[in-house]
Amino acid sequence: MEYESSITENVKAMNLNCKNDRLKFIIDKLVDHLHAFVRETSLTTEEWTVAISFLTESGHISAETRQEFSILSGVLGVTTLVDGINNGKPSEATEPTILGPFFKEDAREVQLGESIASEGKGDYMYVEGRVLNLEGKPIPNAILDTWEADGHGLYDVQYENLEDCRGRLRTAEDGSFAFRAIVPVPYSIPEDGPAARLVLALGRHIFRPAHLHVLVTAPGYEPLTTQLYFKGDPYLTSDVAFGVKSSLIVTPEIIEDLAMSRLRGFKEARPHAYIKRDFVLSTPAQGIRARKLLNTEK
Amino acid sequence: MEYESSITENVKAMNLNCKNDRLKFIIDKLVDHLHAFVRETSLTTEEWTVAISFLTESGHISAETRQEFSILSGVLGVTTLVDGINNGKPSEATEPTILGPFFKEDAREVQLGESIASEGKGDYMYVEGRVLNLEGKPIPNAILDTWEADGHGLYDVQYENLEDCRGRLRTAEDGSFAFRAIVPVPYSIPEDGPAARLVLALGRHIFRPAHLHVLVTAPGYEPLTTQLYFKGDPYLTSDVAFGVKSSLIVTPEIIEDLAMSRLRGFKEARPHAYIKRDFVLSTPAQGIRARKLLNTEK
Repeated sequence: MEYESSITENVKAMNLNCKNDRLKFIIDKLVDHLHAFVRETSLTTEEWTVAISFLTESGHISAETRQEFSILSGVLGVTTLVDGINNGKPSEATEPTILGPFFKEDAREVQLGESIASEGKGDYMYVEGRVLNLEGKPIPNAILDTWEADGHGLYDVQYENLEDCRGRLRTAEDGSFAFRAIVPVPYSIPEDGPAARLVLALGRHIFRPAHLHVLVTAPGYEPLTTQLYFKGDPYLTSDVAFGVKSSLIVTPEIIEDLAMSRLRGFKEARPHAYIKRDFVLSTPAQGIRARKLLNTEK
Repeated sequence: MEYESSITENVKAMNLNCKNDRLKFIIDKLVDHLHAFVRETSLTTEEWTVAISFLTESGHISAETRQEFSILSGVLGVTTLVDGINNGKPSEATEPTILGPFFKEDAREVQLGESIASEGKGDYMYVEGRVLNLEGKPIPNAILDTWEADGHGLYDVQYENLEDCRGRLRTAEDGSFAFRAIVPVPYSIPEDGPAARLVLALGRHIFRPAHLHVLVTAPGYEPLTTQLYFKGDPYLTSDVAFGVKSSLIVTPEIIEDLAMSRLRGFKEARPHAYIKRDFVLSTPAQGIRARKLLNTEK
C-alpha cells in the first residue's frame, strides 16, 4: 500500500535532478494534476485502457492538415484558456479569440477593396472598417490577415494546392481597410475522429458557428488574433470550440441595392451582406498591464 | 476577460446533457484538472504547441507492440497509481505491481520443472515456490503465467513470430510450482520516442531494473499481477516505470553445484541462480476490504 499513497511524491523526487527549471515545474504540476484526477475518479483499469487507445487513435488520425489533439484541446476549452492567459487585452481593445489550425503565414496580398474569395464560393459579403489604437487614432499600414471556410465549411488548406478565401491587406493612411469575401457557414470538427465521438457522447453537437478569422499586426502594437461571429447563428451559445465572445458578434446588413453590389466589385448582380467593424489594438505595455490584472483576479 | 475566468464552468455547463453519468464525471474532473494545470503554470502558447506536437508524435510512433502513451503513463507514475487503486491487496498477500505491455493471453503450457526459455537466451535461473492463500493453505491447480525479457532486454512479442521466455504452469496438489528460466537483465524504454526524450530531459535515466513477471490466477481468488526484482540491481531505486516494491525484491542464490544444475534439467554444466518465492493470494472479499481501507486512508 505504501506505493499507492507515495507515488506522486516518488515521481517528483525522481525529477529533482532536472536542470531545466521550467520543464521540471510544468511536469511536477502535470504529475500533481494527473494523479489527483486518477484518485478523484478512482479510474478503473478498463477506463485507463480506453484512454490509452483514445490517445493512440488521436495520434494515428492526425496528419498535416488534421490535428486531432488540437481539436481535443479546443473541445475541452483548453485552447481558449491558453489563449486568454497569453493574449488577454485591455477591455477597450478588441477581444481576442483562438487562432484555430488553419492560419497560413504567407497568404497572398490583396489590394484594398479586392476579394479574398473566388466567384462561386458562397454568398457575397463586404467587410470594411478601420484599425485603431486605444486612443482612437488610426493605424496606417497595419497588416490584416483574414481567412474563412468556403461554402462547404472547408478551408483552402484542407484541399490540395488551393489558396482561396484567404488574403492579406494593408490599411490605408486613415487606418481603413475593405475587402470582398463570402458569408461563412457553420462547420463541424471532423466527424470521423475520437474528438467528435467524445463530444457526441457528452450530449453536445460538433459544430462551430460561422466565423471570419482576422489577425492584425502593426509595428509598436501587440498582434490581435480574433474572429467575427454573426448574429442569429444557431451555434453562438454552444460553439464546440468555445471561441465565441459576445463582443465579437456582428449583425450583417443585407444590401439589396444591386448598384452597390456592382460598385463594390461583385461580379454578379446579387444582394450582399455588409459588415462594418473596427479593430482596436493595444501596445505591449497596455497588454502586459491587462494580463497582470487578469492573473491577479483569477 | 470574462471568458478566461469562466471557461472551466462554461465547458462543464456544455456537458450537462450527457446521459452517461460516469463519462460526465470523468470529463468534468479532467477539465477541472487540465484547466488548473494550465492556470498554475500560466502555460505559454509555445509550450502548448510543443505539447500538441509531443502527443502527436507519441501517437505516430505507437504500433501494435509499441505503445508510447502507455510508456508515458508509466514514466509519470500514472500506471502505478491506477494499478494500486484497482489491484491493492491486504498486507499479508503478495504485493501486486504493474502488468506491463508484454503480457500474452495464450502462452504455451509448460510442465512443472520445465523451461520457459530456450537454451542460449541467457544465464540459467531456477524458480520455485508455492501459491498460498492468506491462511497459509496451498492452492492446487492455480495457473501461473510468467514472462521475462531475453538477454537483449527484449520480449518475444517484440520479435516477429516468436514465443520464448514465457510460459504457463499449473501448481501441484501441494500448491508448488517450479520452472527453469533465465536471469533477466535491465532494459530501457524505447530510446527513439518522445517518452524517453522527456525522461532524459528530466535528468533521469530510461532503465527498468531486471524483473520476472508473474500473473497467478485461481478459482475463488483475485488474480495477482506482480514482478520479482533482484537484489543488487543498479536501478532498484530509480525504476523509470515505478514498478519496484521492496517486498518484491528477491536475493538469488548462486548454485555452483553442477550436479544440481543437471538434476534441475539445465542442458549445459553451468552454475545457476536459484529463487525460492511463494505467492500469496487473497479472496475477492479480502481484496475489496483492503482497497476500501486504502481509499479512506488517502
